[in-house]
Amino acid sequence: MVRSDKRVLEGLRPGVSAKEAAMRSRRISLVLTDCDGVLTDNGVYYSDRGEVMKRFSIRDGMGVERLRAAGIETGIMSGEVSPSILKRAEKLRLQHVYLGIADKRELLFTVLARHGWVVDNVAFMGDDVNDLPVITELQASGLTAAPVDALPCVRQAVHYVSAASGGCGAFRDFAEWILSHRLRDITLSAEHAVPPLVRHTTME
Amino acid sequence: MVRSDKRVLEGLRPGVSAKEAAMRSRRISLVLTDCDGVLTDNGVYYSDRGEVMKRFSIRDGMGVERLRAAGIETGIMSGEVSPSILKRAEKLRLQHVYLGIADKRELLFTVLARHGWVVDNVAFMGDDVNDLPVITELQASGLTAAPVDALPCVRQAVHYVSAASGGCGAFRDFAEWILSHRLRDITLSAEHAVPPLVRHTTME
Amino acid sequence: MVRSDKRVLEGLRPGVSAKEAAMRSRRISLVLTDCDGVLTDNGVYYSDRGEVMKRFSIRDGMGVERLRAAGIETGIMSGEVSPSILKRAEKLRLQHVYLGIADKRELLFTVLARHGWVVDNVAFMGDDVNDLPVITELQASGLTAAPVDALPCVRQAVHYVSAASGGCGAFRDFAEWILSHRLRDITLSAEHAVPPLVRHTTME
Amino acid sequence: MVRSDKRVLEGLRPGVSAKEAAMRSRRISLVLTDCDGVLTDNGVYYSDRGEVMKRFSIRDGMGVERLRAAGIETGIMSGEVSPSILKRAEKLRLQHVYLGIADKRELLFTVLARHGWVVDNVAFMGDDVNDLPVITELQASGLTAAPVDALPCVRQAVHYVSAASGGCGAFRDFAEWILSHRLRDITLSAEHAVPPLVRHTTME
Repeated sequence: MVRSDKRVLEGLRPGVSAKEAAMRSRRISLVLTDCDGVLTDNGVYYSDRGEVMKRFSIRDGMGVERLRAAGIETGIMSGEVSPSILKRAEKLRLQHVYLGIADKRELLFTVLARHGWVVDNVAFMGDDVNDLPVITELQASGLTAAPVDALPCVRQAVHYVSAASGGCGAFRDFAEWILSHRLRDITLSAEHAVPPLVRHTTME
Repeated sequence: MVRSDKRVLEGLRPGVSAKEAAMRSRRISLVLTDCDGVLTDNGVYYSDRGEVMKRFSIRDGMGVERLRAAGIETGIMSGEVSPSILKRAEKLRLQHVYLGIADKRELLFTVLARHGWVVDNVAFMGDDVNDLPVITELQASGLTAAPVDALPCVRQAVHYVSAASGGCGAFRDFAEWILSHRLRDITLSAEHAVPPLVRHTTME
Repeated sequence: MVRSDKRVLEGLRPGVSAKEAAMRSRRISLVLTDCDGVLTDNGVYYSDRGEVMKRFSIRDGMGVERLRAAGIETGIMSGEVSPSILKRAEKLRLQHVYLGIADKRELLFTVLARHGWVVDNVAFMGDDVNDLPVITELQASGLTAAPVDALPCVRQAVHYVSAASGGCGAFRDFAEWILSHRLRDITLSAEHAVPPLVRHTTME
Repeated sequence: MVRSDKRVLEGLRPGVSAKEAAMRSRRISLVLTDCDGVLTDNGVYYSDRGEVMKRFSIRDGMGVERLRAAGIETGIMSGEVSPSILKRAEKLRLQHVYLGIADKRELLFTVLARHGWVVDNVAFMGDDVNDLPVITELQASGLTAAPVDALPCVRQAVHYVSAASGGCGAFRDFAEWILSHRLRDITLSAEHAVPPLVRHTTME
């Protein structure tokens, strides 16, 4: 167990000021997200043919579009291998789709190396214990978030907890949170800039 | 950014009295609605074949019937192109179905011109930022509404916020709100006139 | 508008004592229910082939079994014609399935005449305005109920409002409410008799 | 009606101290669960072909994995015979899958005899009246739990009531509850040990 995992278990939260959040938001080039429990409500539909469907949110889809309009790439990193995730990623024209990932931390560094990015350039949203290693890596200089219905240990470890649940706009909310922070202390110029749905945050 | 968008961002809400709402309701000839997030809960179901299903509400369907019985037409205006929306619209015998609409404001005026209507004749329900331009156009003399789980910036911009969520009777509630306002100050004559589910409104 | 509809619109609720509810429960031979909004959460799933699915509750299914064990028949009365309702009714071996019913009140009396029952023998659960005429007929000597998320005008008109929502055990709860009232003032003998989920009731 | 059923009907709850819960958790070799209402939200999806789908939770799936990593087997015991349950069980590589079980208590003892286990080795989660006989058998020396939306008579009878609903992580929560109790008074050594989502418990 690395030091920052211990810190999470002890109930310490990562403290970052609003000013710091604004500064970090401006450095983000890639928003990575877990799929099940973030882009979905963890639901998976089974028929006599096995897994047949997952439910995604149109609102999250518009989050991807709005990040793209701001020059930020989006990606999914999931432990599952699911054809419905793949199809959704295609529809949203995501630049990064990594399925069946046993070690998400290892993949993070592979992606960074391939694209010439550092952890400062990455934001990540997750909801379960296998997301904690990535959240830990991004704590010092990246940005991390969780849906309100994430596991408690994940909610305690991230910079921002969305008021929305997984599959119900949590990703969109994180996207708007990043986008709005990029505009802080800058003359407001975006059309329809949306105030984030902030309810809980460990960054204020 | 037009003036009324700025007004929304500043937290100002459109003030309209109950009497005004009653008067406007009597002029409505067409109720237009966004689909995802209003007629659905923003959910979209994906399988290995891509998008396969959306979930609609029987209760909203009865709203369409009740508007029709009052001589009011109904229409969907969506940024998405989805076969399930088309099928639902067919089942409900909607007079207006506009899918894949990038600029909803532009379409609004095309529809008005084609049918000889003005903005006074239109009510509209939406939930996301791409609905704001239409909501802005209808602010001065039409009627606008949003589900309780619409984005905050949309909730702030509309005349009426339903207590119901998207896909869970929000459209039906708006329909009943309009129908009940048409009856205000008139001898109650409709069979089973339903008191609206008003919880939040900016019109009182 | 008949007199009792007027009474509902005026906010008067049908008053029946717990003792009366117990007496009426013992006379019930048939529990009829609306489908959409009672056995389902009003959701209907559309694909490119039109309506494809509805979601039912296993818990309600056990309500049917438990009514059957007590010698009470069960039936669905719906304004819709939906193959998924038919299949669910078959699975539950319902004795009465009436779909595409425009006038539910008329059907009620047809069923009564065919089976030699009177209104005293019928309990009914509904959620929308087209259920009101049946609810009105059963007010004086039958039993009526609604899910907690029924339209307000329906909640006001029934004898019992379940704490459960449509599609989430509301029918089961009404079934248990009837079964438990049949046991009142009688030596408790049923195996696993379940206390009803009473939260709201107009009968106490 | 056996004595402990009577106890439940009288509102008595099984009292077990936290220390006792920790001791019992260490003896568990098998976690059995009902399916509908625990692994699902009781929903069953019908089309014109009858039952087509059930919705499971990815989060529960990870609960199975984490139990397996701790050397604990997992099994489903359901009154229903559903191909979607079977497929989900296959995906999760469950060691025990018992469908169409009319008498769950009888099956429990068959399973124990076959594997050389006693009731002390079994934990069980259920939500409806047909789960009560097993819950009763496990009261004195096993462990029992229910989702927060289980029937009241079930919630009253179990050792632990999860804060999560059926199909929304209740099983995962019970799994974590067991795993965390096994670690009590022992030097914390598991990576990412998750504090349970305890909200209600009858064991403190």
